[in-house]
Amino acid sequence: MIHHCTIGQALPTGAVIREIAAEKDLPAGFDAELAGKTVTIRRKLAPEEMIMGLGQAVGGVNRRGQRLRAWNSDDFSHTENKECLYGSHNFVLFINGAESVGLFLDDPGEIFYDLGFTHPDEAVITACNGGLDVYVLRGGTPAEVCRELRRLTGASYLPPFWGLGYIQSRWGYASERDVTEIVENHRSRGIPIDCVSLDIDYMDHYRDFTWDRRHFPDLKGFAAAQKADGIRLVPIIDAGIPVDENDTAYVSGREQDVYCKKADGSDFTAAVWPGRCVFPDFLRPETRSWFASQYRTLLDAGIEGFWNDMNEPAFFYSDEGIAAAYAVADELRGQNLPLEAHDRLKGAFTSLNNSREDYRRFCHTYRGGKVNHERVHNLYGWGLTAATAQALREDAPGERRLLFSRSTIIGAHRDGGMWMGDNSSWWSHVLLNLKMLPSLNMCGFLFCGADLGGFSCDTSPELLLRWLQLGAFTPLMRNHSAHHTRLQEIWRFDNWEAMRGAVRVRYALMPWLYAQLMRAGLTDSLLFRPLCFDYPEDGEARQVEDQMLLGEGAMIAPVYEANARARHIYLPEDMLLIRFRDADDLDTLPLKKGWHRVRLEANEFPLLLRKNTLLPLAGPAERSRDIDQRHFRVLGWCDRAVETPFYQDDGLTAAPTLAEGNALLTADPAERTGRLVTREGEWATDVSRVIWE
Amino acid sequence: MIHHCTIGQALPTGAVIREIAAEKDLPAGFDAELAGKTVTIRRKLAPEEMIMGLGQAVGGVNRRGQRLRAWNSDDFSHTENKECLYGSHNFVLFINGAESVGLFLDDPGEIFYDLGFTHPDEAVITACNGGLDVYVLRGGTPAEVCRELRRLTGASYLPPFWGLGYIQSRWGYASERDVTEIVENHRSRGIPIDCVSLDIDYMDHYRDFTWDRRHFPDLKGFAAAQKADGIRLVPIIDAGIPVDENDTAYVSGREQDVYCKKADGSDFTAAVWPGRCVFPDFLRPETRSWFASQYRTLLDAGIEGFWNDMNEPAFFYSDEGIAAAYAVADELRGQNLPLEAHDRLKGAFTSLNNSREDYRRFCHTYRGGKVNHERVHNLYGWGLTAATAQALREDAPGERRLLFSRSTIIGAHRDGGMWMGDNSSWWSHVLLNLKMLPSLNMCGFLFCGADLGGFSCDTSPELLLRWLQLGAFTPLMRNHSAHHTRLQEIWRFDNWEAMRGAVRVRYALMPWLYAQLMRAGLTDSLLFRPLCFDYPEDGEARQVEDQMLLGEGAMIAPVYEANARARHIYLPEDMLLIRFRDADDLDTLPLKKGWHRVRLEANEFPLLLRKNTLLPLAGPAERSRDIDQRHFRVLGWCDRAVETPFYQDDGLTAAPTLAEGNALLTADPAERTGRLVTREGEWATDVSRVIWE
Repeated sequence: MIHHCTIGQALPTGAVIREIAAEKDLPAGFDAELAGKTVTIRRKLAPEEMIMGLGQAVGGVNRRGQRLRAWNSDDFSHTENKECLYGSHNFVLFINGAESVGLFLDDPGEIFYDLGFTHPDEAVITACNGGLDVYVLRGGTPAEVCRELRRLTGASYLPPFWGLGYIQSRWGYASERDVTEIVENHRSRGIPIDCVSLDIDYMDHYRDFTWDRRHFPDLKGFAAAQKADGIRLVPIIDAGIPVDENDTAYVSGREQDVYCKKADGSDFTAAVWPGRCVFPDFLRPETRSWFASQYRTLLDAGIEGFWNDMNEPAFFYSDEGIAAAYAVADELRGQNLPLEAHDRLKGAFTSLNNSREDYRRFCHTYRGGKVNHERVHNLYGWGLTAATAQALREDAPGERRLLFSRSTIIGAHRDGGMWMGDNSSWWSHVLLNLKMLPSLNMCGFLFCGADLGGFSCDTSPELLLRWLQLGAFTPLMRNHSAHHTRLQEIWRFDNWEAMRGAVRVRYALMPWLYAQLMRAGLTDSLLFRPLCFDYPEDGEARQVEDQMLLGEGAMIAPVYEANARARHIYLPEDMLLIRFRDADDLDTLPLKKGWHRVRLEANEFPLLLRKNTLLPLAGPAERSRDIDQRHFRVLGWCDRAVETPFYQDDGLTAAPTLAEGNALLTADPAERTGRLVTREGEWATDVSRVIWE
Repeated sequence: MIHHCTIGQALPTGAVIREIAAEKDLPAGFDAELAGKTVTIRRKLAPEEMIMGLGQAVGGVNRRGQRLRAWNSDDFSHTENKECLYGSHNFVLFINGAESVGLFLDDPGEIFYDLGFTHPDEAVITACNGGLDVYVLRGGTPAEVCRELRRLTGASYLPPFWGLGYIQSRWGYASERDVTEIVENHRSRGIPIDCVSLDIDYMDHYRDFTWDRRHFPDLKGFAAAQKADGIRLVPIIDAGIPVDENDTAYVSGREQDVYCKKADGSDFTAAVWPGRCVFPDFLRPETRSWFASQYRTLLDAGIEGFWNDMNEPAFFYSDEGIAAAYAVADELRGQNLPLEAHDRLKGAFTSLNNSREDYRRFCHTYRGGKVNHERVHNLYGWGLTAATAQALREDAPGERRLLFSRSTIIGAHRDGGMWMGDNSSWWSHVLLNLKMLPSLNMCGFLFCGADLGGFSCDTSPELLLRWLQLGAFTPLMRNHSAHHTRLQEIWRFDNWEAMRGAVRVRYALMPWLYAQLMRAGLTDSLLFRPLCFDYPEDGEARQVEDQMLLGEGAMIAPVYEANARARHIYLPEDMLLIRFRDADDLDTLPLKKGWHRVRLEANEFPLLLRKNTLLPLAGPAERSRDIDQRHFRVLGWCDRAVETPFYQDDGLTAAPTLAEGNALLTADPAERTGRLVTREGEWATDVSRVIWE
């Protein structure tokens, strides 16, 4: 059930796809007040009330006690105090015993969330746009409330099957030779891989829609050869277009007048990678169409997937900002600088990036009028994603393509996936990766993953290994690292065989993981859920935030601490422990409901499976296309004949439906047989390792 | 047993107090190589080998897999990738099954530790001073190896009893009125407090040995009035002296020629809080004596304790450094700045602080010769601590005074305690606080604590509460926060009564905690130990890093996660769970060896007590001097008549000894009686809550 209320002068984002008549007041449980431009929504929190949702943010799955802010921000240091990261996901889920209620704030501007931070028993939400559309969602269980959100804002982007393959990336791959070396080193060691994603180095001086012709003399030929070997290239595209008369995109966009404008009507500029750039006004459909058309050269070269970056938009500096910094420097030149003056000098330069003043310097054309960027800031990232999605759709209307983006807002979940941005090689970010999965899923983002091994800072062999073991279960499985950090490709580490084991397990699980993802997407469900979603009456389950339910019947519980060789795992019901070492090296153990201390050597990672659920494992493969999708070895712990819902399609065709992909896995204890049943036929499965009780 | 080996041309720190003949080679298990100025020590690591020690550093108690560096650094962002913080503690403890071996590197320069980071099975230690003294310590158990280090480098600083009181501090207390407000708000709510520590705001323009006469018109009278109320003022002292002809200390030091010199013989200057400063050459005894004499005015005003800061030494910038930054800025002025140029401009200013070039610009007189600062960098902080300790000793030779410092090295543990520097209001820093305690103890630093609630960033009610519950057990118990952060005094929070409960428990435990600290100091033992120290055969105990053994017979297990209302606790033997809510509000539960999931509401925190150990609780008190040290309520779980070692002295007299303070707590199940037995007499204790089995 959805209750819609418009407070003040709303400026909606376009996320909502269903018209719902607005009522005058918010329902009981929420108080709203409009004062000047500020809308304040308050809610008294019950002692045990949990607060979830809010997508991309640091902290717990239960966000009670946190302070957060919707303001899309390019911030590479994801420390615990950060109130906002790259995306704004204005969906808050309050869970108070059996009552769940969701709040979706359809607003593209800054929103402040005080979720028991100032006063432990009160949530205060403040929006600053002069008004907004509020949707109160009720549906019984937390999962049902999240489904209501998806019905209100649209179904989630779903990738092609190959997008679930292992992706190797690094800020630093600059040539065909680099890519070839990466691929060869995976292939020669039997480490599965499907993609190499190309960071800014592939471009010609960091210019969108170009590539370095010295180092990629024949991109089309190279991409084709790679694809023949089962490798797709996935290049990065940024938001800014360099101010450069020799840049084709720049000149074309200027001719079509697509760039964001300052108040005086001139194009707004700010520096990013290539220096001074203009920024397409992605809020206009015409601009998105123009931008989509710019992909033509890359699409013609055979590129089938993209990742979007710097689309908050991120700025290094503006002309005005740097002039102000120089003015401070000139003023203080030669002076003795005590604390305050020193802070001023340093602050003048450190505050240049992504400054609020710069965001106020330009306008968009939005919903027929001029709007200052600050009011619609959180929409910008989606605009780039939407334009890219349009380019891919127009290029291959019948196919799903790969697309993931950095800066998002609810609504963008329809157009692409996302990665969690520029994390660090910190153990705490393994746990953060895990915790962000359900929060993002609640907001509609299903195709997600973090930079495995960590982007900034130097990774360690054990950290990368443990992170890959988590990444084996995330839809986007990408190892990505920053320039000047330790080289992070699997084969470079002494313990590479254990890492390979994690990737091989991924490939053995890929048909199953794909089925879970597709079923979640096609039923507006969550792929990853905190335990309290499925076990609301279980007091222990409420407390657990370092394990997540995965799809239908499974649970992950990664190790995320250095030198740990065991962890506590809570089973909310009887489950089968599967301890993976490699695709063909695992052991299983039926465990009873309750807490368990599970031994997990460095090369071991667990998957927990509900009783009477079947898990299909494919045979070994080093490319997603080589995975045998018909012949599975099945694991399970069953005390009766079992049918487990499954899903299969060609992994590529656009607009998939549940009906077309519907499939079943069955196992029968009487005859010790198992079957894969699809619309296309039936295949026997190997159930010799199913444990019958 | 201590094996001493001098490699190359050593430059010792002065930490070693015993002469031990040097042998030619390192013993088996270590390989050393001198190449140029670089000494490399290698050790093959056994699969299960643990690596501990190294004092102040992020990461685990078991440091295996980490990369660390000895280089005293003013760095306020204690993220997981930081290789060095404020102190250098060059003691590494290798624990391989029953074999423990310690390595103490007596060197004041930079040392690199690769402890299985590059190659999981190898530790590589690299020192760059052209040689160093290596001491290999063997003693059977890890605790015995740590004791050998204390015998080699001297006994630990021990504070007065009042130094264990609750200390309230903030960067921002600027006046008598501020202090009065702080104290009154504690007193009126019954929150115990013993000290207010004064950050840089008390000074006159951040100048050492001054105070702001407008806001502290009569410091002596004010300090005396506060002391009468049981409050001591503990002001900060920094390393730099401002270049200011009107500054008494500056002029005096110049006359005595005590400042560090550049190669050309002029005084080296760099800016800190007051702007351009000179830096006393604390490595010279004459300078330390001069500096000690400067404390006279503060001592005469009745000050009895100090904290030392910025003694890495920390620099904001040097004249040369800022000139270079301006040169970059001038060169790039008006240019279009792509990535690399932008990085250069910003880096020019962000790299001004604590730059390596600046550390190379000046010299010390050390061991009779001129030595470039870089070679002896890690000694500087100790010099300030030693000078302060000298001032306090000369002022009151018969008494212990309070002293804690930021930048330290092994050796400085004789002269003062330390706090853990500028942490953040992050949940992970509660755990870091816990983990650093045993690591620092191993290196001799017993009087330690972190800024409770967190220094940088805004704390939350629950974070401060949980941190205070840990702080109740740390010798230094100080709530300290940075300017521009959320006000962090207990009474400002909705849940202040629960926080008060934690401080009241501290005061009830203070005689016991003091006894544990004094006994640890006087027996060269650790106050906090990882479980594997006492239970080397216990495989689970090896893995536990979020619980610590405390003193003789106790264990702490704080909650360090938001919204957690329970935690796992491992008992390496049968223990009594004491769940504290307030000094007079607790419950107890005997628990068997093994893992337990212990419920801990937000206002509850546990202490675990070995069977047949007695824990004395004092009655309520709001000042340390008001604690009744004769009449205790005793807790325990006993199956026989018990005698628990205890310690009592006047809490003040210098050079305490175990013999003089020796005391006993006894309990007899037959007669249901208990006694406190000291050299001065016997007192009955209340044993009505001891659980007899």
